[in-house]
Amino acid sequence: MAVNLNPPQAGLLPPVAGVDLLVAEAGIKTPGRKDLLVLKLDKGNTVAGVFTRNRFCAAPVQLCREHLAAGVQIRALVVNTGNANAGTGVDGRERALRVCKAVAGSDQLEVEQVLPFSTGVILEPLPVDKIVGALPALRPADWAEAAEAIMTTDTLAKAASRTVSIDGKPVTITGIAKGSGMIHPNMATMLGFVATDAAVTRPLLEQLVKDVADQSFNSITVDGDTSTNDSFILISTGKSEAGLIDSAEQAAYPILRQALLDVAIELAQAIVRDGEGATKFITVEVNGGRSTAECKDVAYAIARSPLVKTAFFASDPNLGRLLAAIGYAGVADLDVDRLSLYLDDVLVARDGGRDPDYREEMGQQVMNRSEITVRVELGRGAASARVWTCDFSYEYVRINADYRS
Amino acid sequence: MAVNLNPPQAGLLPPVAGVDLLVAEAGIKTPGRKDLLVLKLDKGNTVAGVFTRNRFCAAPVQLCREHLAAGVQIRALVVNTGNANAGTGVDGRERALRVCKAVAGSDQLEVEQVLPFSTGVILEPLPVDKIVGALPALRPADWAEAAEAIMTTDTLAKAASRTVSIDGKPVTITGIAKGSGMIHPNMATMLGFVATDAAVTRPLLEQLVKDVADQSFNSITVDGDTSTNDSFILISTGKSEAGLIDSAEQAAYPILRQALLDVAIELAQAIVRDGEGATKFITVEVNGGRSTAECKDVAYAIARSPLVKTAFFASDPNLGRLLAAIGYAGVADLDVDRLSLYLDDVLVARDGGRDPDYREEMGQQVMNRSEITVRVELGRGAASARVWTCDFSYEYVRINADYRS
Repeated sequence: MAVNLNPPQAGLLPPVAGVDLLVAEAGIKTPGRKDLLVLKLDKGNTVAGVFTRNRFCAAPVQLCREHLAAGVQIRALVVNTGNANAGTGVDGRERALRVCKAVAGSDQLEVEQVLPFSTGVILEPLPVDKIVGALPALRPADWAEAAEAIMTTDTLAKAASRTVSIDGKPVTITGIAKGSGMIHPNMATMLGFVATDAAVTRPLLEQLVKDVADQSFNSITVDGDTSTNDSFILISTGKSEAGLIDSAEQAAYPILRQALLDVAIELAQAIVRDGEGATKFITVEVNGGRSTAECKDVAYAIARSPLVKTAFFASDPNLGRLLAAIGYAGVADLDVDRLSLYLDDVLVARDGGRDPDYREEMGQQVMNRSEITVRVELGRGAASARVWTCDFSYEYVRINADYRS
Repeated sequence: MAVNLNPPQAGLLPPVAGVDLLVAEAGIKTPGRKDLLVLKLDKGNTVAGVFTRNRFCAAPVQLCREHLAAGVQIRALVVNTGNANAGTGVDGRERALRVCKAVAGSDQLEVEQVLPFSTGVILEPLPVDKIVGALPALRPADWAEAAEAIMTTDTLAKAASRTVSIDGKPVTITGIAKGSGMIHPNMATMLGFVATDAAVTRPLLEQLVKDVADQSFNSITVDGDTSTNDSFILISTGKSEAGLIDSAEQAAYPILRQALLDVAIELAQAIVRDGEGATKFITVEVNGGRSTAECKDVAYAIARSPLVKTAFFASDPNLGRLLAAIGYAGVADLDVDRLSLYLDDVLVARDGGRDPDYREEMGQQVMNRSEITVRVELGRGAASARVWTCDFSYEYVRINADYRS
């Protein structure tokens, strides 16, 4: 059902020097399925991450935060699917730590040099023995296989890559992500790992990871639910021949930033395109606001509304539902008589009501498309925001009513 | 599909002296259907209302606010279904005013003495001529018929009544409501009209209508969408023999308040029981918070979550989704290790994870019920909140994908 999304092709996903990928079948939930991914990082790298703001953050998220704060160099990431190790209390932390220790032990690392990630069912104890038992079976993989190894309800693996030139030297950015439900910013049931062979200092990488996440993974929604496990990690290996980037003032910075953003947006959009039950890919653009925050509020009110999303599913230009969502977005003193609403290039509403030239056929024509942009011009300032969402179908209900069975 | 809800019985809905009900078939959307209700009020009444906070509030809501602020005595309410007269700009106001004028004209009233209400499709021009043309055909009705006349996607009419004794005199409270989708506080696609023959001063009635709405219609959700037209009106006719209530200090006040609240909660719960596609009625109680606001945030995070609601539909004790929703409710510094989660009387989670004595069968047994209480003890204060919601089914998608066709 994914909307205009193709499976990743290994040939279009160049490796990133300094990152070794390894996969295995640990049988965590489904026997024979790739469910374990280890990323081994050469010395000299920097790593930065952003994580869920869910207070019930999972045990691996807690350990990631601690290990990144410990000031040691990260040398391995271990990712399992099939079990989220969330809502598991102190025991969950101990289990995540045992996984880190096992990975560290095989390479003579400190436990803090390993970052753990888990995704899957919540509230079930992590089967540590299965994971540890599968470590000797890890085998080298490419990025496409790595993307497959982190899938849960995803119908397609998600990967993206860009190559840019910095200081006249080629720099590669390649990344993978997973997620298709429980998707809402801060963040999704979403894991994202993007690596580059560019060299970036840790403080700058930390700034980049927040900046990039805000405009990609934190700008999508499938169902408004925010997961306990969401993690987005940037890895800079420094193995390219381009010089070190240590300041946003450097000429190389915007080039790298844009390429990272392109990869992250492609991954984030892939999550929405593969949104549970999605049949349509919707971009919501809000311009003319007083602040980015109020633009995002309006965009998300539209993007989250079950009534709007079922109307998209039905290809029904029931535009009143869009206006209602704008109206309840909580923007103080919003003057609805000053805003305009567009469906793709069709002006639908202005002056507080339907545009006199609008005809139902015009809206219907747009609604029949599989990719639609809703644009709101608030007419009260210069700020903008953009989010991506999908429609809401029978299939969403079926998937989520059946997930555990 | 309504959950444990019966149609109103005229015999259980005593009239309220001073309120005359009239209905007609105006053919606004569906020929032959009761779609027009007029409530005529005797002199000496007081009226107070609360309305949607949606910035795209409908034309009739704007007029209601103005007419209530005009300081004249309200003598008639006119309610149509089939068209919401929302997102209709200046033209929409003019049309609503024409309806008020026609109702006022037939009784030699000022136009400000009439309150208009509309519910139905948004963005379509109100067919004023049909409404005005049907006024001569209005015929007396009882409260059960009045409840039928304001239905839209409701599968059952909604009415409730209580009789209490004040100053040794009988006092009647009878009300009706409509709504089953686009239901979220502030408020729902919801109209509610509750009348009593008690005598209450206008300032006290204004306080009562807010207080009662907060604990009834503003404590429900079906889909998280807030309508453009929501209105809740309290009418005090003063026709009973009980004395005037002009202060919350009077002994009569808590008696009347509780009876009004009982009627409003019964009506609000009826809306959830008849929620679009509902198969389960869910009460979410949150206790032990630092403030009512944070308790409501947690309750609504649970009550709105599509993942939680589909799990209820599937009778699946997928309790991790409940914990995840609590975690993203936005409560600052929430210590998840101190909270407890109950499904009816079953302790599910504590100390940040599953209770050691919890077994899946125990959760399954509760999940199989048609009425379930989720209780969260936050363990950080003395505040509480309670909201009502329903599950999320295939049928919700079908209804909302088909509504206009």
